Amino acid sequence: MADQPERGFPAEEFAARTARAQALMAEKDLAGLFLTTEAEIRYFTGFHTLFWQSPTRPWFLFVPAEGKPVAVIPEIGAALMRRTWIEDIRTWSAPAPEDDGISLLVDLLSPLAAKGARLGVPEGHETHLRMPLGDHERLLKALAGLQPVDCTDLIRRLRMVKSEAEIAKIAHICAIGARAFARVPRLAKAGQPLEELFREFRRAALAEGADDVPYLVGGADRGGYHDVISPPSRRPLRAGDILMLDTGASWDGYFCDFDRNFAVGGADDLSRRAHEVLWRATEAGIAAAKPGATCREVFDAMRRVTAEMDGSGGDVGRFGHGLGMQLTEWPSLAAFDETVLEEGMVLTIEPSLSYGDGRIMVHEENVVVRAGGAELLTVRAAPELEVIG
Amino acid sequence: MADQPERGFPAEEFAARTARAQALMAEKDLAGLFLTTEAEIRYFTGFHTLFWQSPTRPWFLFVPAEGKPVAVIPEIGAALMRRTWIEDIRTWSAPAPEDDGISLLVDLLSPLAAKGARLGVPEGHETHLRMPLGDHERLLKALAGLQPVDCTDLIRRLRMVKSEAEIAKIAHICAIGARAFARVPRLAKAGQPLEELFREFRRAALAEGADDVPYLVGGADRGGYHDVISPPSRRPLRAGDILMLDTGASWDGYFCDFDRNFAVGGADDLSRRAHEVLWRATEAGIAAAKPGATCREVFDAMRRVTAEMDGSGGDVGRFGHGLGMQLTEWPSLAAFDETVLEEGMVLTIEPSLSYGDGRIMVHEENVVVRAGGAELLTVRAAPELEVIG
Repeated sequence: MADQPERGFPAEEFAARTARAQALMAEKDLAGLFLTTEAEIRYFTGFHTLFWQSPTRPWFLFVPAEGKPVAVIPEIGAALMRRTWIEDIRTWSAPAPEDDGISLLVDLLSPLAAKGARLGVPEGHETHLRMPLGDHERLLKALAGLQPVDCTDLIRRLRMVKSEAEIAKIAHICAIGARAFARVPRLAKAGQPLEELFREFRRAALAEGADDVPYLVGGADRGGYHDVISPPSRRPLRAGDILMLDTGASWDGYFCDFDRNFAVGGADDLSRRAHEVLWRATEAGIAAAKPGATCREVFDAMRRVTAEMDGSGGDVGRFGHGLGMQLTEWPSLAAFDETVLEEGMVLTIEPSLSYGDGRIMVHEENVVVRAGGAELLTVRAAPELEVIG
Repeated sequence: MADQPERGFPAEEFAARTARAQALMAEKDLAGLFLTTEAEIRYFTGFHTLFWQSPTRPWFLFVPAEGKPVAVIPEIGAALMRRTWIEDIRTWSAPAPEDDGISLLVDLLSPLAAKGARLGVPEGHETHLRMPLGDHERLLKALAGLQPVDCTDLIRRLRMVKSEAEIAKIAHICAIGARAFARVPRLAKAGQPLEELFREFRRAALAEGADDVPYLVGGADRGGYHDVISPPSRRPLRAGDILMLDTGASWDGYFCDFDRNFAVGGADDLSRRAHEVLWRATEAGIAAAKPGATCREVFDAMRRVTAEMDGSGGDVGRFGHGLGMQLTEWPSLAAFDETVLEEGMVLTIEPSLSYGDGRIMVHEENVVVRAGGAELLTVRAAPELEVIG
């Protein structure tokens, strides 16, 4: 693993992200951004810890109209935050249910409230507020005069376009994921409970260099699987099964997200055909994912191919999405999303179809949008459904 | 792994949880509970999927005053939800930013709004709302008349006390974690970058039967580590280091959460003393964790011992917490928490102290509160700081 990218980012990357945010804030007359979620706080600071797994403590970041962001965080995170480019770090001994950072936030934001300033808060699609709702209400009451304004679009515009350093991390974990999938023919065997195969796959991805495998779903059933979000059962793999594994492995806080389908022992005709149609739909999606195209157009390009076998559109809701610090990010490759693709966007190309007696099949690759078109980050699956075991 | 507990729970467990919730709802005159978060929805339904990793789609559960809960969820989850005990499952094709389940929720809750009913919503400590804030505001506006009431205390009372089936799952993953820690003396060696040791530890925990290792933090530094939430660096382990690994591994959706300290090559006197004090503080916490004791009393019992070396109270904010479907849950072993311990509560006993030149040391075990006192779920660490390498 001598060839792995550097961990973290230089301070210049965070300064550039903050400057881009501040330029957009100026356009919208925002006096600052108020952020509570892991990806947003990491995006502006580099603060990277698994401690977010604990729901106990809230964490806050204020991005002002000028200057560096200000962190308002539990004391337990101070040492780690001091290693980032952030200088103004205000802490309290959390948890403290009576005042979990609220009075520190009131101190920080009162001058804005006094001016009736507009404060950007993510309130839109794919966002949430990671603090107790009651504390949020108390905070707004204490800051009467402040005007909260939805800033989802601003955050979305920033995060959708990745830097070269971010792309290098995603490419690295995609290569690790590809090597893990290449091991599946040796790991999987008839008679093996699916939960054991999942465990072996996680171990393989770690051995190939993943930091973690936060997401691994899949299915296996005779002639095709029925859903794509289940944890594994103890049902043993059998000849005639179609097996799908879909992984979101991570490296330095960036994800891959792609899947592979396998036929155990041999493939039935319908599943072979479904795979072939999905493979061509994926080709169409990759070909369409060029700067200037809309997400809807990329979706439509795939849809025209999957319609050969399935007119319903399936129940997945979209045919791909953004990828980066989160397993799924804006935009959506879907009929509702008119986002125009730009260089530097990283996407999953993920058509699916329903077939036979309630079967579903999903195929997925990861790409980065370049000037000349989409560039694969994953090692492209073979057109034919791979037979193992 | 023939001795592992059954996965999932029988329908009777969910019926009993719902009945307990409904009894508490009647006391508080609540017409229902509105839930959006993974642990709460799994608690009442058994719906278990890693798909929550994706922030794109909201999921909703309504627990009525009588009868089974009603799921309002993305179509992609319908097949999995149909395998639970839930019967009333209402779905939409998500993502759909213009109407991500909102009109389905309005249909469901309008009769309550018309009556001016009280609807329980978790708004307190350690909770958050997992849906876009803007959608939440639209929903409340469409349901004018409905009275949202904080139901954190109700959810907290239910979830803090575990069933025997839940305890069996936690005991199982604690035993797996203990076997993984027992491998550390063979896995760790001087010269090994910490990130490689982390990877090996994850692989060991999986090999011992963990489904996943969502949480692994730690540190290593000469004469003691400096923080307890960092991801691993590439710094190689060296003789004279104190190494700490803290893991939240999971099995069937339940966590262990404990740590172990090791001295590489040999231990300095101060670190040996810190470990000995923490070990005795842990003994004091275990002895104090009896039904009828308050969390504050258990905290005080530990605090009296750690005060031998550290009068500050450290920056961790508490000396342990609840454990179950989440890495950290209510209650907190802290001066602010007057929760009275009951049989069936599962806790981490986790004293920490600061020593020397800005060093910190943490020690942690997991227990279940029984009639006669705390029963260890982990394999108790040795009193002396273990020397490896």
